[in-house]
Amino acid sequence: MGVTLKDVAQRAGVSIKTVSNVVHGYEHVTPEMRQRVNKALEELNYQPNLPARYLRKGRVSILALAIPFLTNPYFSDIGKAVINAATARSYTVLIDSTDGERSKETLVINGMYPHLIDGVILSPLALEAEDLQERRVTVPLVLLGERLFNVPYDHVVIDNVAAAKLATQHLISLGRKRIAAIGAQGVSAGDTARLRLQGYREALVEAGMSWNPDLVIRSLEYDRIDGIRAMHQLMELETPPDAVFCFNDLLALGAMRALYEGSYRVPEDVAVIGFDDIKESAFSVPSLSTIAPNKQQIGDLAVSFLLDRIEETYSGPPRQTQAPFQLIVRESTAGRHA
Amino acid sequence: MGVTLKDVAQRAGVSIKTVSNVVHGYEHVTPEMRQRVNKALEELNYQPNLPARYLRKGRVSILALAIPFLTNPYFSDIGKAVINAATARSYTVLIDSTDGERSKETLVINGMYPHLIDGVILSPLALEAEDLQERRVTVPLVLLGERLFNVPYDHVVIDNVAAAKLATQHLISLGRKRIAAIGAQGVSAGDTARLRLQGYREALVEAGMSWNPDLVIRSLEYDRIDGIRAMHQLMELETPPDAVFCFNDLLALGAMRALYEGSYRVPEDVAVIGFDDIKESAFSVPSLSTIAPNKQQIGDLAVSFLLDRIEETYSGPPRQTQAPFQLIVRESTAGRHA
Repeated sequence: MGVTLKDVAQRAGVSIKTVSNVVHGYEHVTPEMRQRVNKALEELNYQPNLPARYLRKGRVSILALAIPFLTNPYFSDIGKAVINAATARSYTVLIDSTDGERSKETLVINGMYPHLIDGVILSPLALEAEDLQERRVTVPLVLLGERLFNVPYDHVVIDNVAAAKLATQHLISLGRKRIAAIGAQGVSAGDTARLRLQGYREALVEAGMSWNPDLVIRSLEYDRIDGIRAMHQLMELETPPDAVFCFNDLLALGAMRALYEGSYRVPEDVAVIGFDDIKESAFSVPSLSTIAPNKQQIGDLAVSFLLDRIEETYSGPPRQTQAPFQLIVRESTAGRHA
Repeated sequence: MGVTLKDVAQRAGVSIKTVSNVVHGYEHVTPEMRQRVNKALEELNYQPNLPARYLRKGRVSILALAIPFLTNPYFSDIGKAVINAATARSYTVLIDSTDGERSKETLVINGMYPHLIDGVILSPLALEAEDLQERRVTVPLVLLGERLFNVPYDHVVIDNVAAAKLATQHLISLGRKRIAAIGAQGVSAGDTARLRLQGYREALVEAGMSWNPDLVIRSLEYDRIDGIRAMHQLMELETPPDAVFCFNDLLALGAMRALYEGSYRVPEDVAVIGFDDIKESAFSVPSLSTIAPNKQQIGDLAVSFLLDRIEETYSGPPRQTQAPFQLIVRESTAGRHA
């Protein structure tokens, strides 16, 4: 007990900064330096003195990231991206899962863990603007995604209309005539579905194609099983679609599974495109074309916004920024020899 | 500010216990009760008073779960299971990702976040027994998995030898003669790989089959891409295998992708079985046979062990327990009409 970074630095014969980098898991440390520091840490039984650190800096160097579902790969990818960005700035990230419930999201913004963390990044699913207006705690907060607009917090989004339009235009460019959409939701649900549906419709209209409500399947949940269910509805139509735009990759992977069970060929009979570019999509059979938001950039921007507030390097009005995205063409639209 | 659970209970006309259940996200509350409580919480702008709660109970009702990789679905499933178990006991779980690095795992056991949490569940990948022997902090700790044995902490494991044997016996029962294994590691690496290799060998020996070192492919990493690489090695053999036991599902999904690209049929040419039963495996094309550890039970047991220590309902010697597992037969071994 009572061992300081300085003690460790002296023992290891390196700078305090190097010790700090190793302790905080900063990546750009040579293996040799890391080994020397780890040896000294172990020999001295170093234990980080968090309260002292807190008193000195007024910070604990811990951020919370609250995501709806831990088991949705899109959100664990975002988690990884936020951890990468925070680690490079010597912050640790703890992850909380809200199940997309309004009560849990409200607890997160109102300081479920005060004194424990320096700031929160929240990807809300159910929170309403009024919940944020009533917020009293001053722990810095950054929002991710399309659930809430025009609230007084820094916010990282992607242009969902343009991204959905790009996905639909890709299907149109393949000569497909009956292009379905899976993942629409009611007007009261999240904005993400509404914006993606808008992009889909705009692409069809601009291509001079009529849009057919029978080809738009609603789904409140976005898991693989929901994609199977939705695809079954489409396969039961008198004339099934020849292409499907799914509002996330899990829906698309479920849709491809349903097509396989129904002995439809992908993409020959039905081309499929998703949204998110989760890892699984590069390895599925066939591999899945998708829209890839730049998740590392989402993480970088969110952490940068948050640390600006925590470290008081920015105190101006709330900022909103868009992370870029790109179309990834794989076998599910281009065929096996893409 | 200053609103108590009692105030909320009076406003909502329910018991304090009901309010507590809603605030802590306990699932067994009727929707009507939940709605009444949420309304009262919002009207009164309730904010949980954590320090007061801490002073009263000496606890913050927060657990930490440290897993190696957030983006490995097995670990996010375990995370979900731990959250389920903790929520039912009115505890919140924050998740930390260690990247399987010894320095980060050491920080976790030595109280990276003291005063923040009541206890830690750790799934170690790189930690050594000596790291634990030097541990000074008294925050309760429960270990998951096969990395460390004979250390003075409660420990939840599965019987990896028996599970791997069951997987291999399933392939033998299909009449396969050249059964490969993917995921072996060096003797200095984790015990999981060693135990699974042992189960594989025992099954072959008991069936009177010789084991062929050419059919055992090492892999230090267990991601999809590693499965592809390992399967390529097997496909380049003069006589490729007719079955493969992969030490996790991600390796198996990669192996199936490589077989697809090489125009091998699964299971007609090569049967494939994995280990973990991640969600993806029920939806892949073909769906993947696997060993399913009872992940919810792993979470239940770990949380139960930990809360026994935190709430001082058990103070005896360290306990070790095994969670059950089962064989799940799907298309990758039984064929399409399984």
